[in-house]
Amino acid sequence: METKELEKSFQALNIPKTHATVGISNLIASNKQFRSLFVNRRLPNAGFSDVQIQNLLFLFSILDTNNKTMATGGDGDGEESRWCGVGEREGRVYSSLVAQRHFGLSHGMGRSGDITEPQPKAAGSSALVKLTLLLALDAIRRGSGLNAKGPAASGILLPLCTGMSMSLLLSSLKSSEGSDSNKTIVLWSRIDQKSCFKAISSAGLECVVVPTTIQGDEVVTDVQAMEQALAQYGDKVLAVITTTSCFAPRVPDSVDEIAKLCAKTNVHHVINNAYGLQCPKTCKLINRACVVGRVDAIVCSTDKNFLVPVGGAIILSPHKKVTALVGKVYAGRASSSPIVDLFITLLSMGLNGYTRLLKERQTMLETFPNRLQAVADKHGERILSCPANTISFGMTLDGLARSKRDDESEADYLASVAKEISSFGAMLFSRCVSGTRVVPRGEVKIMGGHDFVGFGSSTANFGHAYMTAACAIGVSTQELDEFFVRLDKTLTEFHTKKNKASAK
Amino acid sequence: METKELEKSFQALNIPKTHATVGISNLIASNKQFRSLFVNRRLPNAGFSDVQIQNLLFLFSILDTNNKTMATGGDGDGEESRWCGVGEREGRVYSSLVAQRHFGLSHGMGRSGDITEPQPKAAGSSALVKLTLLLALDAIRRGSGLNAKGPAASGILLPLCTGMSMSLLLSSLKSSEGSDSNKTIVLWSRIDQKSCFKAISSAGLECVVVPTTIQGDEVVTDVQAMEQALAQYGDKVLAVITTTSCFAPRVPDSVDEIAKLCAKTNVHHVINNAYGLQCPKTCKLINRACVVGRVDAIVCSTDKNFLVPVGGAIILSPHKKVTALVGKVYAGRASSSPIVDLFITLLSMGLNGYTRLLKERQTMLETFPNRLQAVADKHGERILSCPANTISFGMTLDGLARSKRDDESEADYLASVAKEISSFGAMLFSRCVSGTRVVPRGEVKIMGGHDFVGFGSSTANFGHAYMTAACAIGVSTQELDEFFVRLDKTLTEFHTKKNKASAK
Amino acid sequence: METKELEKSFQALNIPKTHATVGISNLIASNKQFRSLFVNRRLPNAGFSDVQIQNLLFLFSILDTNNKTMATGGDGDGEESRWCGVGEREGRVYSSLVAQRHFGLSHGMGRSGDITEPQPKAAGSSALVKLTLLLALDAIRRGSGLNAKGPAASGILLPLCTGMSMSLLLSSLKSSEGSDSNKTIVLWSRIDQKSCFKAISSAGLECVVVPTTIQGDEVVTDVQAMEQALAQYGDKVLAVITTTSCFAPRVPDSVDEIAKLCAKTNVHHVINNAYGLQCPKTCKLINRACVVGRVDAIVCSTDKNFLVPVGGAIILSPHKKVTALVGKVYAGRASSSPIVDLFITLLSMGLNGYTRLLKERQTMLETFPNRLQAVADKHGERILSCPANTISFGMTLDGLARSKRDDESEADYLASVAKEISSFGAMLFSRCVSGTRVVPRGEVKIMGGHDFVGFGSSTANFGHAYMTAACAIGVSTQELDEFFVRLDKTLTEFHTKKNKASAK
Amino acid sequence: METKELEKSFQALNIPKTHATVGISNLIASNKQFRSLFVNRRLPNAGFSDVQIQNLLFLFSILDTNNKTMATGGDGDGEESRWCGVGEREGRVYSSLVAQRHFGLSHGMGRSGDITEPQPKAAGSSALVKLTLLLALDAIRRGSGLNAKGPAASGILLPLCTGMSMSLLLSSLKSSEGSDSNKTIVLWSRIDQKSCFKAISSAGLECVVVPTTIQGDEVVTDVQAMEQALAQYGDKVLAVITTTSCFAPRVPDSVDEIAKLCAKTNVHHVINNAYGLQCPKTCKLINRACVVGRVDAIVCSTDKNFLVPVGGAIILSPHKKVTALVGKVYAGRASSSPIVDLFITLLSMGLNGYTRLLKERQTMLETFPNRLQAVADKHGERILSCPANTISFGMTLDGLARSKRDDESEADYLASVAKEISSFGAMLFSRCVSGTRVVPRGEVKIMGGHDFVGFGSSTANFGHAYMTAACAIGVSTQELDEFFVRLDKTLTEFHTKKNKASAK
Repeated sequence: METKELEKSFQALNIPKTHATVGISNLIASNKQFRSLFVNRRLPNAGFSDVQIQNLLFLFSILDTNNKTMATGGDGDGEESRWCGVGEREGRVYSSLVAQRHFGLSHGMGRSGDITEPQPKAAGSSALVKLTLLLALDAIRRGSGLNAKGPAASGILLPLCTGMSMSLLLSSLKSSEGSDSNKTIVLWSRIDQKSCFKAISSAGLECVVVPTTIQGDEVVTDVQAMEQALAQYGDKVLAVITTTSCFAPRVPDSVDEIAKLCAKTNVHHVINNAYGLQCPKTCKLINRACVVGRVDAIVCSTDKNFLVPVGGAIILSPHKKVTALVGKVYAGRASSSPIVDLFITLLSMGLNGYTRLLKERQTMLETFPNRLQAVADKHGERILSCPANTISFGMTLDGLARSKRDDESEADYLASVAKEISSFGAMLFSRCVSGTRVVPRGEVKIMGGHDFVGFGSSTANFGHAYMTAACAIGVSTQELDEFFVRLDKTLTEFHTKKNKASAK
Repeated sequence: METKELEKSFQALNIPKTHATVGISNLIASNKQFRSLFVNRRLPNAGFSDVQIQNLLFLFSILDTNNKTMATGGDGDGEESRWCGVGEREGRVYSSLVAQRHFGLSHGMGRSGDITEPQPKAAGSSALVKLTLLLALDAIRRGSGLNAKGPAASGILLPLCTGMSMSLLLSSLKSSEGSDSNKTIVLWSRIDQKSCFKAISSAGLECVVVPTTIQGDEVVTDVQAMEQALAQYGDKVLAVITTTSCFAPRVPDSVDEIAKLCAKTNVHHVINNAYGLQCPKTCKLINRACVVGRVDAIVCSTDKNFLVPVGGAIILSPHKKVTALVGKVYAGRASSSPIVDLFITLLSMGLNGYTRLLKERQTMLETFPNRLQAVADKHGERILSCPANTISFGMTLDGLARSKRDDESEADYLASVAKEISSFGAMLFSRCVSGTRVVPRGEVKIMGGHDFVGFGSSTANFGHAYMTAACAIGVSTQELDEFFVRLDKTLTEFHTKKNKASAK
Repeated sequence: METKELEKSFQALNIPKTHATVGISNLIASNKQFRSLFVNRRLPNAGFSDVQIQNLLFLFSILDTNNKTMATGGDGDGEESRWCGVGEREGRVYSSLVAQRHFGLSHGMGRSGDITEPQPKAAGSSALVKLTLLLALDAIRRGSGLNAKGPAASGILLPLCTGMSMSLLLSSLKSSEGSDSNKTIVLWSRIDQKSCFKAISSAGLECVVVPTTIQGDEVVTDVQAMEQALAQYGDKVLAVITTTSCFAPRVPDSVDEIAKLCAKTNVHHVINNAYGLQCPKTCKLINRACVVGRVDAIVCSTDKNFLVPVGGAIILSPHKKVTALVGKVYAGRASSSPIVDLFITLLSMGLNGYTRLLKERQTMLETFPNRLQAVADKHGERILSCPANTISFGMTLDGLARSKRDDESEADYLASVAKEISSFGAMLFSRCVSGTRVVPRGEVKIMGGHDFVGFGSSTANFGHAYMTAACAIGVSTQELDEFFVRLDKTLTEFHTKKNKASAK
Repeated sequence: METKELEKSFQALNIPKTHATVGISNLIASNKQFRSLFVNRRLPNAGFSDVQIQNLLFLFSILDTNNKTMATGGDGDGEESRWCGVGEREGRVYSSLVAQRHFGLSHGMGRSGDITEPQPKAAGSSALVKLTLLLALDAIRRGSGLNAKGPAASGILLPLCTGMSMSLLLSSLKSSEGSDSNKTIVLWSRIDQKSCFKAISSAGLECVVVPTTIQGDEVVTDVQAMEQALAQYGDKVLAVITTTSCFAPRVPDSVDEIAKLCAKTNVHHVINNAYGLQCPKTCKLINRACVVGRVDAIVCSTDKNFLVPVGGAIILSPHKKVTALVGKVYAGRASSSPIVDLFITLLSMGLNGYTRLLKERQTMLETFPNRLQAVADKHGERILSCPANTISFGMTLDGLARSKRDDESEADYLASVAKEISSFGAMLFSRCVSGTRVVPRGEVKIMGGHDFVGFGSSTANFGHAYMTAACAIGVSTQELDEFFVRLDKTLTEFHTKKNKASAK
């Protein structure tokens, strides 16, 4: 509806001109924001209202074809439906509840050829998906601080988690080498997390785990070991995977150093940055890596960074052809639901809202370590000193275990106390504290035939049992207040119980 | 957004022109429907899709001012909100759930001066309310068949039920007589229903119940009694209230005859037509009444006629000043929620959908009496012959009661069996049959100091105990199938029980 | 579902016991809150989540009968529907969008006999409405501070605005006097607001306006004038209406003094406290009035006090029979939509959320007058000193008008500058400042045949043109910041324009 | 809430016992359905109402942990939140609109180890996903007719389209062979569709296209060619992929014959049955294949078969270990949104609703070919005789092209008229007919280095240009009526235009 037509209608409805003027000025102001969104395709500074967002979503839905629910549409006299569909999939939705939760959008995203390809029947959905990518890139550039001419030069949104996105990315890198290529090895700077490891084998590739090393408390990249591995596996190496968001005491990989190595050896370099967009330090590091060396892609989670439900990822790259190729490897269409969530969320936040969230995290970071240290002090523990990790924090839990008896081997001892220490994690969880990880010393886990000694700490020989807690985007001050109280209480209870048990 | 701008945006988003063309043609088709709605202000023939309806609702919401939820709006940096409100009521809504269910609309309808007056802050809400009235009038004219130059010449929508609407209407008729008027009596052709009776006293008026009379099974208007009452109370009579939708054996009043009397005596004539819009016969009768005599207003329920939740009414009148006056008597603003429901429903139905519902009822009507008769036959009862009532049907229940003993008075007998007969209604309800009414003979109810003998049948001396069931708009064939089965079963059970009891 | 059954199901679904335990403990915690709600029927301290609230609403909906949408229910094979309805209104809802926004609830509230009476078909809706009243009373007692043994002893929720609620209340007071009563006069301590005035005539009563008087800047109750009026009209006086929430310079009536008079003269005393629940001072005053004298009822808006969309009111009374009577006067059922809004909002707030809102207003109150004074100072105006009004604040606008010429009468002068001054209000509104009122001197408005001289200021002879702004519940700091900036700017613009004009 | 507690609450709220009894009997009836769902874990015969479905969804949501929106939760005083989260992902959702559309569910599905593994924090989501699988399997067994002891013995739901699901399945089959296996070839009975072809290469495997053959009009499996291919590639063959839902003139593969071959050669056999669940003939064929030979898995689309938005698939298998393995190959968690859609839809349909849809399609099938033939007759075309394909129908379009000139080669001729014929598809689309495919003769498409001659018809030498239209589940009679009208009109227009052009 154009505003002039509305004016006439208002007149016909006997709405006084002064009222109509106010109303239409509201509409013009809103339309101006819409137009600016479509013209600039950047995240607006101020967030949109829920009313505006829904108005937009239903506009996109109207642009789509055949998006009617069976319950209300088309029955009776044939006049209701402009479109008649005689394909095998015509956007029909049985339940009006389902249609409603998708704002009438039913065609998903992509085509069989490419997940980023527009749908002929669904111009609205197609535009929505493309626009969301641009908004996300803008948030990442202006909010998180990744360079528009560096790591955030291009991107692709996937309705897949980080793991599957990594897998798809590796497949696309593989395919870019040609079908004759014998590059089947991925060098992985050890990070104790299942899905990335699985992503490699899902892509039909072989994972070589490159060990980390310890500096003080920090578990850091063993750049030398990586260099050796690159030399050892030579032409067979398809890519190196590094990680920039991780649990303490592991700290972000030295992606700048690895980037240099990859540039030198002409090997793909992929960064697993699942939830690192919230951290300015990490973003700077990635920026630098792109300047000083080679970075092919950065994989980030949408839910961990932008507070939407689980199920989306964005792959960034300094090179458009990398992200373009990923789209082509995805076989078929996909649900656009995670992208719709991101669209709503980004528009609702606006750049101001997003930066406010980032700032709030920074503010909480200022006191987080000291507060954790205070609890540690009280119970004879200490926090792990990992200044390079500004999201996850560790606190020793050595005091939870009994001392080693002289007559037992170190291995026997560790195995014996591991369960005891682990039970502390369960205690916290049963007290409604979620997200902590309790890591005893010397645990072994076998994944894909590979032994991970010291599983959880990303290194074989970490000298402490410990727990981690994160100061992540979206955490509230009250949650943290509660956390420190409950942590303190639970430690006290644990020790009381232990003392009682040993007194018997 | 104009389509040209969208086209450009689509181009910028790399949506192929052919896709964009299809999408925009969908939008143009939808906009054409919107424009037609705003220009013609008539019910569209084909219903709108839920997507279109919501797009419109959010458009209206954007036209309003200050309609933000507290949860998401305006916090943090002052840029989010175009408006700043420093009044005592600024459309603030605390809960996003609440905002959501009202599509962001929070200003209600009306102003302190008049419930039909537009709100300066809420041009969207105002237009929505006015448009809904026009759609409803159109549905009533072209669907139900009330004449646009007769009873449906003008209307007012109220977020009140029929009773309160009647009360407000009477207040406005009273006020139109001037404050010195001593017209305080309302003549009411007896209909056994509480809310209309209460509406009269709520308006500060006195109700004189004019008895009905019996013709065959039918309880009909006693036109002569009405004539006498008019003569008797003379100048004191403010209005006559007749009823055109009622439970059998009561049939619609002879509103044409009463209209003639009212014209002759210069007395207001108000028709209580709560759920009669679904009945072409009743609508014709009302049309005729407006031609041959005086009808001031017709009160109809929105929920009973248009299948929305309880809480709205439309008052129709051949005279615009009557409906205009009603609006001015309402003190203050009101919730527009029932009007929003009607807006959605009418647009969703379209004229086609509404007439389809009317036709479906007509189709079921063709067999309803025979099917009821079949059950009656089986149990030694008969249906009441009330051909003038085409919505509610009666079946005798005389066989449910024991016979009168010689040694008891008629009154004692009736009182003694009333409970027994009533229990049959409870039996039906406990078998999940709702909406039936079981009426024993000779019950007395006192309302507002007035004795209603034979309460339920609208006459003092109806010769049968009976039950009623309605064949009303929206009933499904399955429901009716079920009803006849359960009615039959319940009658059988009742008799079995009774026989057992009497065998003891 | 009981938790034990869930446990079994979880086992059958291969959910590990530890997960099930956590999930079920979440459910138990939630159920505990639900149980506490049903057992204590008090506002919980902590608000419920939207998930919990909706779970409850759908529970209420399941308790209701026949609440199916036509779109999805009952078609095809007769098995879908437990109930079959053969009445004229069976809770049928055509549009699934409409059903959805009401959580499936379609029966509204009340019965023809009484709006507070439960519906046989709708036990869920009935319970919801009754529970909401108890929650609201609790919020008013523990949050606002009205005494549970005084003004907030009993209450009734109405899906009507304050004006219509006042009208209904007056009708019920009238009816309680018996039909022979000649008590037809209501004494109204002047407050310049349309809907209360109209409420009196809607109820068929006569309004006698009792003038106010001026003390300093404040427009206060003329207790003496009221005493005289009571004496003058004697037995004819049905009730006195006072007001406790109003625009500066009018301050809350001395309801304690009036209460004493009413007690002495045995006259009903009704307090119009539309948005006064947010003000502790006003609540204390009302408490005291109930102790020292007679207060029959207090009428409050739900939307102004609890931030829901327009359309609900609560009438409070120290006497249960007063509120009980109001319910009986309402003719018929009503939409329960405004009550559903209140239910959601109160549960979402919890007592903590509500008191937080009240506190936030108090905090802003601390600086509001000074900030307004600062703007006033800059433009040669001053704020009106009305310490008894802690919601609405006034600032003189005398400087906006040209000076009086010697050759013109005061009346001519005032009439001549009124328009000029009023235009300042329009300027503010066009700059998206809503809620201010600009009141020139000496305006006359005729309502219901009565001349209101000095309309807007509730007194005939207020010595200043002025504007008002409110520091009301729900206002945000950013809004106020914006307001003072825009007010300052607009005043500057106004003067600049005026100077230019006079320079010509 | 237990019903006894509710009863007490009702009493305390002054709800009459009779009302409470009715309400509680409604609740008990609903709970009985819920219990039956949880105990039997089968699709209920009668569908649930939207109210019931949402009540269930919010129950699942309450079972989850940390599912609060940031907008409304936890701010202010620390009491609101039972859980405090200090992980990197704690189910936080920024926008209440987003939280709302997911019913508060935010944890997605699966864990890093396995997409079917339950989430410790999200017992509700986990149960929902597992239950949905069982409902879908039940619908497939009792509705579609796949044997519970055959192809529908086990299943896995994936929030991925059919293509990606096929890819994941192939990866899992590959992994099951061990990492040393050199089985890298997939034999693919030619079907001209991109995503399945891509799925093979995405899984890092090599596709060998096995040609089809022509019998009459039908394009059928070349069983002999397949046998030869199996012999030729021997040990290198990982799997054979056949297809059972396809566009005419291609008919479902002879999966029974291929199953025998695969059994003999010990090769995996995967059936691409994207939208074949709607077809009883196809389901019987698959049942038989499982009896007479080897079938490892059947891949089906959820959106094409169950009318939900795009984005889900179900992989069926006679062998539980096959589907179990697929879950383990998926790297990480995933969006559960497509599964929530399916849950709602299946419960809303019930078995009765689903079988009704299947029957409605069968009914339309009875006349579809004849009606298409009627249009064909009128324009000198004929329908392709492909009785084995009961979903997609073909009609020749040979008359659309000019005749071959003597002086041009067949190839030149075909290339020259292809565009002309294709334009007919665009004409249909621009007349709002979607889903048809127009296939000229002899088109060549290169995919992944492989030439597909005669692309679209799945064979190199199909002798006609033709179009297809489907009679698929969910199509309405009005749509089909419209389709035949528009098809006829468009053909007429096409010929008129062509004649005009040739007349020039």
